[in-house]
Amino acid sequence: MQAKEYALNLAQKAKKTVRTLTNLKTDIKNKTLLRTAELLLERKEEIIAENKKDLENAEKKGYSKALLDRLALDEKRIKQMVQVLKDVAALPDPVGEIVNMWTRPNGLKVGQMRVPLGVILIIYEARPNVTIEAASLCMKSSNAVILKGGSETINSNRILVDIIKQACRETCFPEDAVMFVDTTDRSVVNELLKLEGLIDVAIPRGGESLIRAVAENSKIPVIKHYKGVCNLYIDDEADMEKALNIAYNAKVQRPSVCNAIENLVVHRSIADRFLPEIAYYYGKAGVEMRCDEYSYNLLINHPKAKDTEIVPVKEEDYYEEFLDLIIAVKVVDSLDEAIDFIEKYGSHHSDAIVTENYTKGMKFIQEVDSAAVYINASTRFTDGNEFGLGAEMGISTDKIHARGPMALKELTIPKFIVFGDGQLRENIGIPKDEEIKINTESCNLK
Amino acid sequence: MQAKEYALNLAQKAKKTVRTLTNLKTDIKNKTLLRTAELLLERKEEIIAENKKDLENAEKKGYSKALLDRLALDEKRIKQMVQVLKDVAALPDPVGEIVNMWTRPNGLKVGQMRVPLGVILIIYEARPNVTIEAASLCMKSSNAVILKGGSETINSNRILVDIIKQACRETCFPEDAVMFVDTTDRSVVNELLKLEGLIDVAIPRGGESLIRAVAENSKIPVIKHYKGVCNLYIDDEADMEKALNIAYNAKVQRPSVCNAIENLVVHRSIADRFLPEIAYYYGKAGVEMRCDEYSYNLLINHPKAKDTEIVPVKEEDYYEEFLDLIIAVKVVDSLDEAIDFIEKYGSHHSDAIVTENYTKGMKFIQEVDSAAVYINASTRFTDGNEFGLGAEMGISTDKIHARGPMALKELTIPKFIVFGDGQLRENIGIPKDEEIKINTESCNLK
Repeated sequence: MQAKEYALNLAQKAKKTVRTLTNLKTDIKNKTLLRTAELLLERKEEIIAENKKDLENAEKKGYSKALLDRLALDEKRIKQMVQVLKDVAALPDPVGEIVNMWTRPNGLKVGQMRVPLGVILIIYEARPNVTIEAASLCMKSSNAVILKGGSETINSNRILVDIIKQACRETCFPEDAVMFVDTTDRSVVNELLKLEGLIDVAIPRGGESLIRAVAENSKIPVIKHYKGVCNLYIDDEADMEKALNIAYNAKVQRPSVCNAIENLVVHRSIADRFLPEIAYYYGKAGVEMRCDEYSYNLLINHPKAKDTEIVPVKEEDYYEEFLDLIIAVKVVDSLDEAIDFIEKYGSHHSDAIVTENYTKGMKFIQEVDSAAVYINASTRFTDGNEFGLGAEMGISTDKIHARGPMALKELTIPKFIVFGDGQLRENIGIPKDEEIKINTESCNLK
Repeated sequence: MQAKEYALNLAQKAKKTVRTLTNLKTDIKNKTLLRTAELLLERKEEIIAENKKDLENAEKKGYSKALLDRLALDEKRIKQMVQVLKDVAALPDPVGEIVNMWTRPNGLKVGQMRVPLGVILIIYEARPNVTIEAASLCMKSSNAVILKGGSETINSNRILVDIIKQACRETCFPEDAVMFVDTTDRSVVNELLKLEGLIDVAIPRGGESLIRAVAENSKIPVIKHYKGVCNLYIDDEADMEKALNIAYNAKVQRPSVCNAIENLVVHRSIADRFLPEIAYYYGKAGVEMRCDEYSYNLLINHPKAKDTEIVPVKEEDYYEEFLDLIIAVKVVDSLDEAIDFIEKYGSHHSDAIVTENYTKGMKFIQEVDSAAVYINASTRFTDGNEFGLGAEMGISTDKIHARGPMALKELTIPKFIVFGDGQLRENIGIPKDEEIKINTESCNLK
């Protein structure tokens, strides 16, 4: 019952700011973001001290080095957060943009204007930088935000939110537009996810299990991506140098992220030339190759692959997001077979073809049903910044609202605005004579 | 278990058509729609005979006259369906539209291309015309559709789907892209709503209870509107003639629909002039006025309102979608109070202000958080056709994906398409020397 009240109170406070936020001028929003940036530097000692508490708790609990690294804040990382705030302040304000406007035959002017979504609940793991990223994007797009970070970073997040709220007070930005779940009681999240009508959308960021738990428990619409099983297809008409570089970049440059590739799909006609070469470089980089029968037989005793770990693939490997220096290899006989493979095993995140053939490239772009589809480039570019959208709130692999990187624009939605000068449907107004005609046909949607 | 298998089979068949649909040329889609139109006329005797079965069953069950009227098909209504098919064929095809395309500093061309949502489940009540409307919009937007109509119209729907499928076969449109739930077993719907991954979105059309049941049981994203509690605010600076005409039109022209008004909000300074006049005309039209204290005292003994039913309002009336010749009246002291009222009691569907004052009109447009916001026009225009979008699939009062009438465009979503010539993130390709650098920082979303 306490969790329920806590959640309700948070959401109600946030909701109350929605109208004020809608009216807030871009100037004030930018001022608040830039003042937050200043305060992060002014109060950096406090941030580092609070972060130290989180680090010590995490160490005591025996968390992994990777997790400790992720939650640590030092001067460099504080400066990165400062930069995010400056970047978001510099982005154009999407709120109030008239997407479209046209005049109907009866003179009615009908348009669509971007408005904020309302109250956004963001649920994330032990990454204090997300506190700043998510809050700044919501503030710039005039959304109220409820921040629920990983419990391992509660001290760091608390001080960051405190700093944001100080900036809000100093710049007349409604303080309650940034709410913080200041408890490690997990039931609060479940209570928040029930508050349809108060919270408009939930965005979980993190591992698949977190995201599934949110999606399954939520009464609120959720925008999400479960995992990034990205595929690279090397066509028989691929340029060999592009193929090698892209296969290398998309796997090796940063293997732990969702837009790195997990499956390498190769046309049989190019497999004998391409696979030993990439195996050589993958071997140097420590990439383990999980191979189907054809590629296994090709590579297992190949001199180029002598320093590469070559193991037989299991079918379940093709579904796996390794997030590691592992790649599953599949040899196919046609582009259609490659697309079928991607449709079956991929997660509709980012997929690429390497080919010099125009028709095959266009077919891949057209038919692969993923958030981002590439010709001749690394899938590692699927990112708000890399696409030129500015900072991102996450990546959606859903089919509604947004696909791919979600930036400021995706935190708004167009509503219809209609300017009239007295237009009446079917011109039925107050009767000039005494005969009144009413259409009483029952209907719900017209 | 049988319902589960039935649902799964339907969804799998629909899903299998998705790739073919994505590639289908507009020509073929239009040909299929126009051939369906022809066949509706050729086979109209069969339609009317099947519809007669539904009517007889409904009569036996003692259904209301309004329901019987809604499910009846005669030659006139068949011709209306023919027109819908022709209209949808004439609309521009949204699939493949490049919404945006730009070049990044590294030469990467990043664009957004509209693609179908995939498989759409539409759940509706006893309205056979929705079978044709929903199917034609899905077919034109290259979506597969699963149609679940009211069980009272199962014979009518079956013959309509049979006709669509005949047109599909004759024009090489994938027949399984239009699936029909040919059973009155209600558990099939619940099974369909579990098929996340096979079905991409569910759109319930009908009364609030149907829509709530779908939203509560669905694992699939749902696009919906619960109800249309629309409000009209008469500002103290309203033009009296526009105010009377709009108040009349928005309530009387067709009271049974979701974009008719339920609440009339009037500024106190104009109430004494406006309310007796509108009460006179509402009285003529048979509209019952449920009045707050001020308006009740004003009207109860007013000569202009002598033929009008004037009753005291209860607070719950303001939340009610009457769908009838009833209006709730509220007198306010300011625009802000009016907007607060609309925010509290309205359903964020369609709301209008009547005013000659520019600043107040713009404030209303800006601050009222509804799918469609009007100045000086009747809310009855909230409709795909009236807005000039073509036929509509329904009206969304959700905050994500779409707000207001959903037409063809809203049945698609842009995916990112990226044209490269070998771009690599951070330019890390196969190493020229033997030194290999790998960024092993763990991360899920970047």
